[in-house]
Amino acid sequence: MSNTPFQNKNRITLAHGSGGALMQDLIQEEFLRYLKSPELANLDDAAEITVNNTRLAFSTDTFVVKPIFFKGGDIGSLAVSGTVNDVLMKGARPLYLSLGFVIEEGFLLSDLYRIMESIHRTCAEADVSVVTGDTKVVGKGELDGICINTTGIGTILPGINVGGSLAKAGDSVIISGNIGRHGIAVMAERNGLTLKGNISSDAAPLNKTVLPLLERFGDAVHVLRDPTRGGIAATLNEIAVSSSVNIRIEESAIPISKEVHVVCDLLGFDPFYLPCEGRFQVIVDAAVTDELLFFLRGFESSRDASKIGEVTGSSSGEVLLTTLSGGQRILDMPQGELLPRIC
Amino acid sequence: MSNTPFQNKNRITLAHGSGGALMQDLIQEEFLRYLKSPELANLDDAAEITVNNTRLAFSTDTFVVKPIFFKGGDIGSLAVSGTVNDVLMKGARPLYLSLGFVIEEGFLLSDLYRIMESIHRTCAEADVSVVTGDTKVVGKGELDGICINTTGIGTILPGINVGGSLAKAGDSVIISGNIGRHGIAVMAERNGLTLKGNISSDAAPLNKTVLPLLERFGDAVHVLRDPTRGGIAATLNEIAVSSSVNIRIEESAIPISKEVHVVCDLLGFDPFYLPCEGRFQVIVDAAVTDELLFFLRGFESSRDASKIGEVTGSSSGEVLLTTLSGGQRILDMPQGELLPRIC
Repeated sequence: MSNTPFQNKNRITLAHGSGGALMQDLIQEEFLRYLKSPELANLDDAAEITVNNTRLAFSTDTFVVKPIFFKGGDIGSLAVSGTVNDVLMKGARPLYLSLGFVIEEGFLLSDLYRIMESIHRTCAEADVSVVTGDTKVVGKGELDGICINTTGIGTILPGINVGGSLAKAGDSVIISGNIGRHGIAVMAERNGLTLKGNISSDAAPLNKTVLPLLERFGDAVHVLRDPTRGGIAATLNEIAVSSSVNIRIEESAIPISKEVHVVCDLLGFDPFYLPCEGRFQVIVDAAVTDELLFFLRGFESSRDASKIGEVTGSSSGEVLLTTLSGGQRILDMPQGELLPRIC
Repeated sequence: MSNTPFQNKNRITLAHGSGGALMQDLIQEEFLRYLKSPELANLDDAAEITVNNTRLAFSTDTFVVKPIFFKGGDIGSLAVSGTVNDVLMKGARPLYLSLGFVIEEGFLLSDLYRIMESIHRTCAEADVSVVTGDTKVVGKGELDGICINTTGIGTILPGINVGGSLAKAGDSVIISGNIGRHGIAVMAERNGLTLKGNISSDAAPLNKTVLPLLERFGDAVHVLRDPTRGGIAATLNEIAVSSSVNIRIEESAIPISKEVHVVCDLLGFDPFYLPCEGRFQVIVDAAVTDELLFFLRGFESSRDASKIGEVTGSSSGEVLLTTLSGGQRILDMPQGELLPRIC
């Protein structure tokens, strides 16, 4: 098949799955044309649905990470953490998961059991149960190994109302820890790189931090978002557009480990576009900023929590970055294909 | 890679995804060892979960059908019908769906939009909304086209309690229509067969029949099950084992269209093992048998509803078939690989 631009325009490209601009177009222009539900149009990590007066969060994700085992995790721990975290980002306590496997004929049973063990362990950590499942097998060569869908349900905490459209001028933008580790760990494993400093994925369920945070800070919390595909650049841009605000962030305030910095410089990655799988951004009423930072730093997993910026009054939906050298630039939505099969 | 039996024992085979005996072993022996939840151990088509005193049904399925378009449906209508029907089979009104795509790089956008349109149409028919979604793209050659996960939530109807373990001696076993059409339609499309009589898939959401049936017959309904992978042979065997009963069915009473009969004879398929995607089996208190048959036959989609057998007193978990010639044989759980990628 030849790859002329004309043909590409009619076909799915890796960029459609990148979490970036082309993916936004596909979802907003095309999918929402067919599926007009107000919950979907929200484009948060999870939908809010109300059943018999109970507010539920409902979220789905299919995991296609390559390779399936990497430093700090595997497709199983990722599949549980990813969906649990998306339910949490809607202000909900995750309760139940479904688990859907598609497996290539010839896949090693020992690898499958290793993944199951990891799922089991991560569910225990996240305090959720797998209650229903499905297993499909496709022929040799019809899939590269395994993909796993998890779909989660949780109950939204009383009085909590968070969403990408709720950032307000003056709010503080906080990140729970250093960024970029998941992206680097998976890319290193895929390419057989031996990294100095042993960078491992940050993939982990966030329930033990996010639930107490919500209970303590209640309606001062406006937005929760985990920067997965497309990194903090994608999520901050989504929030800026959804909330019709600008967001200004300071490069010097963004926690990045020295090891991630080195690899990014070496390989030409921009850490703002690298996915995290165990970090969250929280946008809060400025009045609680210090108290919330103190609170977050009390947990081992968020001891590097940092205020990275603030929501400004203007409403052009842009993210403005003050660089280390004091210059200013717009931090764009990711364009094109970044890191395929990273989650 | 050589295919010695020893190596195969350590690897996933197509039979692990068949809906048959090997799949049961994988799930019961291995998956349940890691994931010990009472809801999962139930092994019904959907799990029952209770959230704030509301009884919900929760079910997941990933669809890998090949080819993706076939007579009577496509992967989109199948993905909605399949999960909607699994939620219904737990006695619940389906409300919300999640939608997870994994798409191969190079997939035609026009095919994707055709699938979206079909999803939209089937959701309208089934009275459900897609409220949350996910899209992943993998490289060319890393997946054969597209796979779609749908996960559904519904509210279990008041006073309804159905499940595979609730069949009782003396109950009637009823099927809502003729069997085998989905299996034959997909196999014909895959192999480029032109069939006499135009067999099309029966894939359809069952809400318009099942919900009024539950409202009318209430707790006289003991089991609902749609005979998908592995056909009625698989589902009846599962019910017989779960309920610790025997089930006796009459070949002469099982509705099979002449066209399906002809193709089965020609190609050596056994219709009892062919999947349906728009049929259900209902096991009810014998006292309501005639009234329920009359009720079902009032709907176009179940005008062939038929009592095909009954639950007997013995408890060996077997399904006994009285053949057309009057002989008796055990109708086994499907063994080995039957029809890969049929749903």
